[in-house]
Amino acid sequence: MIKDIITKKDNGLELTKEEIEYVVSNYVNGSISDEDMTLLLNAITKNSMSIEETYDLTIAMLNSGDKIDLSSIEGIKVDKHSTGGIGDKTSFVVLPLAASLGVKIAKMSGRGLGFTGGTIDKLESIPGFKTSISTNDFIKEVNDINMAIVSQTENLVPADKKIYALRDVTGNVESIPLIASSIMSKKLASGSDKIVLDVKVGKGAFMKNIEDAKRLSRIMVDIGNKHGKETIAILTNMDYPLGNAVGNSLEVEDAIKTLEGKGDKNFTNLCIILASYMVSLAKSISIEDAIDMVKTNLYNGEGLKKFKEFIKYQGGDLSKLETNYGIEIYSRKSGYITDIDTMKLAMLVRNLGAGRINKDDSIDHTVGVELFKHINDKVEENDLLLKVYTDDIVNKLKYLNLFTISDNKIEDIKIVLDIIK
Amino acid sequence: MIKDIITKKDNGLELTKEEIEYVVSNYVNGSISDEDMTLLLNAITKNSMSIEETYDLTIAMLNSGDKIDLSSIEGIKVDKHSTGGIGDKTSFVVLPLAASLGVKIAKMSGRGLGFTGGTIDKLESIPGFKTSISTNDFIKEVNDINMAIVSQTENLVPADKKIYALRDVTGNVESIPLIASSIMSKKLASGSDKIVLDVKVGKGAFMKNIEDAKRLSRIMVDIGNKHGKETIAILTNMDYPLGNAVGNSLEVEDAIKTLEGKGDKNFTNLCIILASYMVSLAKSISIEDAIDMVKTNLYNGEGLKKFKEFIKYQGGDLSKLETNYGIEIYSRKSGYITDIDTMKLAMLVRNLGAGRINKDDSIDHTVGVELFKHINDKVEENDLLLKVYTDDIVNKLKYLNLFTISDNKIEDIKIVLDIIK
Repeated sequence: MIKDIITKKDNGLELTKEEIEYVVSNYVNGSISDEDMTLLLNAITKNSMSIEETYDLTIAMLNSGDKIDLSSIEGIKVDKHSTGGIGDKTSFVVLPLAASLGVKIAKMSGRGLGFTGGTIDKLESIPGFKTSISTNDFIKEVNDINMAIVSQTENLVPADKKIYALRDVTGNVESIPLIASSIMSKKLASGSDKIVLDVKVGKGAFMKNIEDAKRLSRIMVDIGNKHGKETIAILTNMDYPLGNAVGNSLEVEDAIKTLEGKGDKNFTNLCIILASYMVSLAKSISIEDAIDMVKTNLYNGEGLKKFKEFIKYQGGDLSKLETNYGIEIYSRKSGYITDIDTMKLAMLVRNLGAGRINKDDSIDHTVGVELFKHINDKVEENDLLLKVYTDDIVNKLKYLNLFTISDNKIEDIKIVLDIIK
Repeated sequence: MIKDIITKKDNGLELTKEEIEYVVSNYVNGSISDEDMTLLLNAITKNSMSIEETYDLTIAMLNSGDKIDLSSIEGIKVDKHSTGGIGDKTSFVVLPLAASLGVKIAKMSGRGLGFTGGTIDKLESIPGFKTSISTNDFIKEVNDINMAIVSQTENLVPADKKIYALRDVTGNVESIPLIASSIMSKKLASGSDKIVLDVKVGKGAFMKNIEDAKRLSRIMVDIGNKHGKETIAILTNMDYPLGNAVGNSLEVEDAIKTLEGKGDKNFTNLCIILASYMVSLAKSISIEDAIDMVKTNLYNGEGLKKFKEFIKYQGGDLSKLETNYGIEIYSRKSGYITDIDTMKLAMLVRNLGAGRINKDDSIDHTVGVELFKHINDKVEENDLLLKVYTDDIVNKLKYLNLFTISDNKIEDIKIVLDIIK
């Protein structure tokens, strides 16, 4: 039967709900081979999928594992998801702001396979912070303080884990229906009532152009709404690094600065918008009213207070946050910053050890880059542009190897060898 | 006539005093060409010179310029000269110790063309320090505080300047009579009564083996004595860096530590020996008695007091001494330090900018290397071995060039590109 399904999709025909359910359940249980699944994924990448097919795929994946039951949390639960950017620590600013206004946020998050760690990795840069907690404790935390961020449970959408791993090695990561079903199956399984999607567009994002981003957004929003969960997608600019830091612990510090009202202006505005849409959805109020509320709680420190409460609740000690050696880089001319090579910056940070190349790589929470000037800022010659946090250079210098170290001493050296009068 | 002299020397015959005087005066006034002088230098390098010839050459060079008249300084004036080593800041320790015991020291010193700057360059790393002062002020300073170190006057042995420059470009720097006459003509012109020569021998010295060092020492001591100035040469070990720092301002700091009694043990001993020979010569006392006196003034702080008095007298402000960024390098195993690659260290420091490659290069006083472990020290894994002071690495990182800087701003960036509901 799988051969017929592959042929059908390869010929550009639509698959039925039953066919899609068959594929997902039999791939997860091992009855369909990686080879056959690869052929099907190739056909999907080539011929795409209709909204209906994508919805059916999402639901079939959703049904492959546990669904989190958040019904014991009172009020409207709103989830937020970002498609991923460079320096993306929006969750640390957006969620506390929304939570401080009564929005209930029960967020499950993944580790990163990007240029820096994911939300969970960034949180783990805070000594003591626990990201693996039981569902009961997770729910209790949201009831107690309105928010929690935990590591995805093992059995959350196992179909996505298996399909994503195969997409990754077979070059099928860029198919919009496959992206949409991967994201939305997890969002639906996580049990929130409403969903805000931050779809990043630009040089530092997966979606480089606005048309692709709109198509992806349209499908995800339709899937969410069709499943009874009000969903909204905000397409946001990812041409330049988000905020003033790229790294793990550095981004936690940057988020705190933003919650103190001292963050980068564009990043602060982004966070206000995203938090406001969460508030607007949760309270069914206008976006304008929500923005007023969010701004109030940003500038009166309620957001920061909520963030600290949340970190403490999950065991984290912000006073022990560590960063590495900082090497300063200065401007060599004066003028306005009109571009930042975001991908080069991302690559640098990953090479310093902030991100994973393979799933099992360990990451260095202490490394990264801090930006002191941002797009359109005026700089003079010798102004500080950025700090690179790393001890990698020191490691390289170790190989200078000037000293010979042996198990035994040599004879004491003579200072005066001779006197000539 | 120069052709005959070249032929004579080329045939291994001795030149007369008159011939040597003829060569020196006519080379200085331009009557003898660089080409002819090169041929003669080649012949001298090939066939060497007798003690008499070397003495005559020294005196002819001495007579090519000014001689400093120190007769208005009361007491025995003792000069000190080092043939040059890696981290050689002995003058900053030895001269104040001797001066604190009443020895009169009127030292003229040169800039370095080595791995770090010379004594004058190192002194110029001290903000405010003046090295060019009039002969009258120079003499007054020695009368006032027993010591002064100034930059050689322009017209001190012009023959040496011209001959040295030619030796340097024609491969005639290693001839022992040429080295001896170069050093001793300047020492004799400087006007002191007695001379202590610190002849460095070993991996980090010009003289790699003790036999060459002895031959050079013998000739220099004979020249000094023959000219009526008691001279003594101390052959000292230059296999390992001197003290705990190589650089310019770093060496000034290291000298201060040594005068505080907290310097490297071997380096401290070297300084005690050299100062003691100066005291012994000045006071015509035994070396043992002199050592006792020097040790007393080292450990009671009189040497340090004299150093500070001297720096202040010439306008220097030690509180403003600057060093660069320090990058730390740790041991990767445990054991005893049984060798230090002194030349590699020297090369590193020069490449950081501490020394000159060409005469007109400017040097960076703030860079260098500080050693935290020395020969035969026990080290554990991860013990601090050295600190490299530089911003060179930072300069390299500047080329990351992540930012585009232009004369005009770009349009303000849009944060939210679209909303999909």
